Amino acid sequence: MTTQMIREVAQESAAQRIDSALAAVEQTMLNVVKSDVEVLRDASTHILAAGGKRVRPRLMMLMYLALGGEDIAYAAAPAAAIELMHTASVVHDDINDHGIMRRGRPSVNAIWGRTFALLTGDFLFTSVYQLMAPYKDLNIMLARAATALVEGETLQAHAVKTNTFTREAYARIISLKTAALFQSAGEIGARLANATPEQIEAAATYAFNIGMAFQIVDDILDIVGDEAKLGKTAGIDIEQGRGFVVANSDASSNPADIVDNIKQKLMSGDYLQEARQQAEAFVNMAIACLDALPPSPYRDELIALAELVVKRDH
Amino acid sequence: MTTQMIREVAQESAAQRIDSALAAVEQTMLNVVKSDVEVLRDASTHILAAGGKRVRPRLMMLMYLALGGEDIAYAAAPAAAIELMHTASVVHDDINDHGIMRRGRPSVNAIWGRTFALLTGDFLFTSVYQLMAPYKDLNIMLARAATALVEGETLQAHAVKTNTFTREAYARIISLKTAALFQSAGEIGARLANATPEQIEAAATYAFNIGMAFQIVDDILDIVGDEAKLGKTAGIDIEQGRGFVVANSDASSNPADIVDNIKQKLMSGDYLQEARQQAEAFVNMAIACLDALPPSPYRDELIALAELVVKRDH
Repeated sequence: MTTQMIREVAQESAAQRIDSALAAVEQTMLNVVKSDVEVLRDASTHILAAGGKRVRPRLMMLMYLALGGEDIAYAAAPAAAIELMHTASVVHDDINDHGIMRRGRPSVNAIWGRTFALLTGDFLFTSVYQLMAPYKDLNIMLARAATALVEGETLQAHAVKTNTFTREAYARIISLKTAALFQSAGEIGARLANATPEQIEAAATYAFNIGMAFQIVDDILDIVGDEAKLGKTAGIDIEQGRGFVVANSDASSNPADIVDNIKQKLMSGDYLQEARQQAEAFVNMAIACLDALPPSPYRDELIALAELVVKRDH
Repeated sequence: MTTQMIREVAQESAAQRIDSALAAVEQTMLNVVKSDVEVLRDASTHILAAGGKRVRPRLMMLMYLALGGEDIAYAAAPAAAIELMHTASVVHDDINDHGIMRRGRPSVNAIWGRTFALLTGDFLFTSVYQLMAPYKDLNIMLARAATALVEGETLQAHAVKTNTFTREAYARIISLKTAALFQSAGEIGARLANATPEQIEAAATYAFNIGMAFQIVDDILDIVGDEAKLGKTAGIDIEQGRGFVVANSDASSNPADIVDNIKQKLMSGDYLQEARQQAEAFVNMAIACLDALPPSPYRDELIALAELVVKRDH
C-alpha cells in the first residue's frame, strides 16, 4: 500500500470507531431511561430519540480516542451521562420558557404537561447520577459541572428578571450554563484515557472554549436562524430578554417595542458581527490547545468539530 | 459508681453524640448550598433553616452509631445528602401541587416563584450529587433511591390524573417515593459502620418499614392533622386525589362533592383505623429487625424513633 492508501484505511477505521463510540453512547442513554414507569420512559425516549447534535458526547469520545483510549464501553457511560445532563436541563428549560418545540418535535412540556415534564427532567438528572455513581473521581468533576449549569441558568433567569443582563453577566452565565459542562466532557475524556496532566489541562481548556463559542453561536442563531433548521422556536431568547446584551437605555414601556428595538439593533449587524468574532476567537484558542495531543484522525475530528461550531446553521 | 449511675452517664454521652451527629449533618447541608448565586443560596437556606423533622438523617446516624460507627464527620455527608434529596423533592412537589406553606413557612415557590423554585430543586439535587460523588458504592445505593423517589412521584401524579389510585397503586407509590429513600438511609448507615451482611440487611429492612409507616401516617395527618402543627397546607393530598384510596364508584361529576364524599368517608373512621393499623404493623416489623443490632442507647433511640413515627401529630 502507498502512504496515501494507508492513511485512507486508517481514516476509514477511525470513522468506524467514532460511529461505534457514538452508537454506544446512544444505546447507554436509551438503556438507562428504561424505567418501569411508562410516562418517564416514554417522555425520556421521546426527547432522546429526537436526536440533537450530540456535540458534548462526541467531543468527549473524540478526546478519549485521540488520547489513546480504547475501551469504548467504559467511556460510553460518562459520555451518555453528560448528554443526559444537558437533556435534563433542556426539559426543565422548556417548562420555564414555555418552549413548545425542541429538536424538531413538540417539547416534553407540550405533550405531557408541566408536572410530568418537571418529573422527567428530575428523572434524567437521577439517571445521570446512577450512570456516574461508579466513577468516583470523574463523578466529582461532572457533579461540579452540574451545579455550575444550574447556577448559570439561575443567574440568567435572575438577570432577565432584574433587567441586569450586562456584558459581564452574559460571559459569566454562558461559562457556567454551557462551557462548564463542555469542559467536564473534555477533561473526563482525557482522564479516562489516562492522559498526562498537560494533556488533561489542554483537553479541558479546548472544551471550555468550544463551549463558549457554541453558546455564542446558539444565541446568534436564535436571532438570525431558520426555525425549521433549528428545530425549536427561534427568537425565544430575545423575547425573554436573554442572549445578547443591549443597552438598558433602549427600554421602552411597551414590551413589543422593546423586542422590536433589540431585534433591529442586533440585526443591524454590529452586535452580531462582534459576537461572531468572539466565537471565532474562542474556537481559535480551542484549536491551539490541540497541539498538546498527538496527531491522529481523532485529533483532526476535534479540529473539524471546532470549526463546525462556528459554521453551523442549526 | 452504681450500675444505674454508669447507665445514666452512658446515656448522657450517647445523647450528646447524637446531638453532635445531627449538628454535623445540619452544618454540612448549610455548607454545600453556599452557592455564589444569591437566589439559590437564599432559597436553599430558607427551606433548610425552616427545620423539618430530619427523620432520615437521624435514622442514618443512629444506625451508624448503633453499629459501632465512630467517624461522625465522614457519615455526616451521606446523611446530609439524603435530607437534601428529600428537600429537593419537596421543593419540586410544591411547584406541582401549588403548595404555599412548607415547614411552617411560605414555600420556595410562594416566595421566589415557579422558575426559581424549579432551579432551587435542581440545585439541591446537584448538591446531593456533589456530596455523594466521593462515596462510590454507597453512591450507587442513593442514586437508585433517587430514581425510585422520582418514579414514585410520577406514578402518583399519573394515578391521580387517570383516576387509577387503587390500593395496590398506593402501596407501590409509597414504597418508591418514600420507603426507598428511608431504606437507603438505613443501609448506608450500616455499611458506613462496616456492619455484617445480616446487620446491613436488617438495617435496610428496618428503615424500609419505617418509611412505609411514616408515609401512611403522613397521609393520615393530611386528613385529620392540625395545620398549625403540620406547618403545611392540610387536606391538599385529598383535594388532589392522592393519599388514601376510595372506591372509584364514589365519583360524582362535581369535584367539590367528590372531595367532600372522600373526606366524610375517611373521617368516618374505618379507613383511618385500617391505615393506622397498617402503620403500626410496619413499625412492629421494623422494631423486630433491631434484634440484629447489639443493645445500646442508639438502638434504644431507633426503637423510640419507630414508635414516634406512629405517635406523632405533625
